[in-house]
Amino acid sequence: MNLRESAKGRIRCGELGEDRLISALVASLKAHPGVIAGPGDDCAVVDGAGAGELLLLKTDCVVEGVHFLPNEKPTAIGWKAMARTLSDFAAMSGRPRYALITLVAPREREARWTLELYRGLRSVADRFSVAIVGGETSSTAGPVVISISATGTVEKERWVSRAGGEAGDALFVTGKLGGSIRRKHLNFLPRIEESRWLTKHFRLHAMMDLSDGLGADLPRLAQASGVGFEIDERALPRTRGCSIAQAINDGEDYELLFALSPNDAAKLAVQWRKKFPQLPLTRIGHFTASSESAPPPSFHGFLHFS
Amino acid sequence: MNLRESAKGRIRCGELGEDRLISALVASLKAHPGVIAGPGDDCAVVDGAGAGELLLLKTDCVVEGVHFLPNEKPTAIGWKAMARTLSDFAAMSGRPRYALITLVAPREREARWTLELYRGLRSVADRFSVAIVGGETSSTAGPVVISISATGTVEKERWVSRAGGEAGDALFVTGKLGGSIRRKHLNFLPRIEESRWLTKHFRLHAMMDLSDGLGADLPRLAQASGVGFEIDERALPRTRGCSIAQAINDGEDYELLFALSPNDAAKLAVQWRKKFPQLPLTRIGHFTASSESAPPPSFHGFLHFS
Repeated sequence: MNLRESAKGRIRCGELGEDRLISALVASLKAHPGVIAGPGDDCAVVDGAGAGELLLLKTDCVVEGVHFLPNEKPTAIGWKAMARTLSDFAAMSGRPRYALITLVAPREREARWTLELYRGLRSVADRFSVAIVGGETSSTAGPVVISISATGTVEKERWVSRAGGEAGDALFVTGKLGGSIRRKHLNFLPRIEESRWLTKHFRLHAMMDLSDGLGADLPRLAQASGVGFEIDERALPRTRGCSIAQAINDGEDYELLFALSPNDAAKLAVQWRKKFPQLPLTRIGHFTASSESAPPPSFHGFLHFS
Repeated sequence: MNLRESAKGRIRCGELGEDRLISALVASLKAHPGVIAGPGDDCAVVDGAGAGELLLLKTDCVVEGVHFLPNEKPTAIGWKAMARTLSDFAAMSGRPRYALITLVAPREREARWTLELYRGLRSVADRFSVAIVGGETSSTAGPVVISISATGTVEKERWVSRAGGEAGDALFVTGKLGGSIRRKHLNFLPRIEESRWLTKHFRLHAMMDLSDGLGADLPRLAQASGVGFEIDERALPRTRGCSIAQAINDGEDYELLFALSPNDAAKLAVQWRKKFPQLPLTRIGHFTASSESAPPPSFHGFLHFS
């Protein structure tokens, strides 16, 4: 399937797949001065911040029935919506600063529910010193949609894209993978503190946050860097009770996946244990020259729209 | 009805009304350094831009069945979604620069529809040199939701809030009011060029864009400025075929409403006619001391969530 076929209008979004649909949309956009990294990375990176800094822009949404169940507690839904967005700033070692909230909800939704939702949104925002500076509400005949857009900054010399990985780089993940749906997806902490510490002390080559599962996300990181990868599946840090396949494919881990020179790997492991003794950091494999390896068949991950 | 009642959870959003719900949510937010104007104005105004400038942040959404009909052309829907957002930058005399797009659509929606929607979004963005730098798609079991978030800048000495109006100020509106639903709401031009020209040559005291109708929006402008107003209803510039009531209450005009010193009013009228001969500018009344006047009963406007 290619862009030409999709333009005929016979392909539906569900068939096209999110990555391909986005590729088609992106291909239609004009280049623009001031845009340093556009669609395809965790945040957009643009000019317009103060001296020595870049502006980071991100939008993310959660939909009732897709990202949370209708009977879920509104504070937990709010937490997840805000934490997901801030996790994309962690992915670039950025500092989120301001957020806007769009709430599309049925007219008969209780005001108490809405206030509780905001309590959840606020808990995460306050924890990371993010100011909620506005938003919008609208009614709908359908499920609730909560869309968060956030703006932040990163020092020019500290932002990490997906594209800088090199063959031979050591690959690390924070935390444990798999089983997020049991609870973690509603109360995880975006890895902002960890990500900021990493770029203060080490030169990372590439980084992203794991939202769709290592199986979907690692191939994206490798592709953006123009490299391949090899993973020791037995080394993957698994949530208690999860299989290797679950660790690879469940998704919604919101942990960091990053690449750096193998020469820095040993020093990183030692310093990390001192700084973050409660949070595992695991070397899971390495980048290879692009033709050397292909994703193993177990790497399908979770993709919206597919 | 007050915040205490709403917190009991017996009030539903539809009853609470958007303005009151937002007031309740805003009251729960923490003050934050760097925030110059938060919820309640057309855009949020924050620190973080380059020297001498302020950062403007805005999010806006359109919902199928609320803001557009399901059988509307996707290019027109895209145009409206983007133009509405940019109109809020015009309201502050700002320059929009970057936009992110969130599309929540049923899985079976055709890819062609989505590409056409983007064509509409792009047409407006390109016209005003706004870069679309990313976004997100998600599926839903309900109506389509398109949420746009945009970032822009304004020179510190040129931004215009809703709050600076003074008793005695002359009130002006651009264009003609009423009947937007017949076509204009799908192909209007945000008044960015006009707004930028205004603050280059005149000192405006307060400004906003008319999205919910003069009848809903003028009382908001007056309230934000702590003043009252008097309008000559017969002087209102009406779309051909529209009554005074329609000009006041239809909504979706996306024209500028602004206040400036009566000493500048005559000079403005002359210079405007030279610069924008095709676009009417009409003096519709003036601000009064706050206790002098109350909105006439015909001023109900159009409010979402009510």
